[in-house]
Amino acid sequence: MKEAIVVTINSIPELFDELVAATATMMPETRAFPGCIEAHMLLAPERHEMVIFQIWENSEAQNAYLTWRAERGDFERLTEFIEDEQIFRTYTLG
Amino acid sequence: MKEAIVVTINSIPELFDELVAATATMMPETRAFPGCIEAHMLLAPERHEMVIFQIWENSEAQNAYLTWRAERGDFERLTEFIEDEQIFRTYTLG
Repeated sequence: MKEAIVVTINSIPELFDELVAATATMMPETRAFPGCIEAHMLLAPERHEMVIFQIWENSEAQNAYLTWRAERGDFERLTEFIEDEQIFRTYTLG
Repeated sequence: MKEAIVVTINSIPELFDELVAATATMMPETRAFPGCIEAHMLLAPERHEMVIFQIWENSEAQNAYLTWRAERGDFERLTEFIEDEQIFRTYTLG
């Protein structure tokens, strides 16, 4: 079953552009990861808010991707730009 | 510039399936609307939560669609299934 991830991130206001730039470099890797159907970066600069939206072939592919990112420390690298906790949610595609 | 809509909807718990069914009938119309690039329904039944995710060619197409839905009363028809206010947010595509 296809799975979607929605991650909502509020940046430290003056670091919004840097968060976007750092995330943008990760997108081609995400899209190339086995099982990734699509991945988008959604921006609301006026709210200093970024949403990462991804669709995966199944939950195994999604979990393999998240493990890979975590092991590389990629999520940790982003925390310096972030104001609050990220809101991370998963869904099945209806 | 491409625009995305993310609508987060929490249903009245026992009406989740009905909300999903009512929304599912709207999806083909949304996808066929001029300027719609993609539209998805994301489901988290365990949280009674549904997310509508859409990408539009530009904000004009997005606004034309929202006006069309509002004039038909389609959003109003869904309110009977919904617990809290919908969270409606728009983004530009990064």
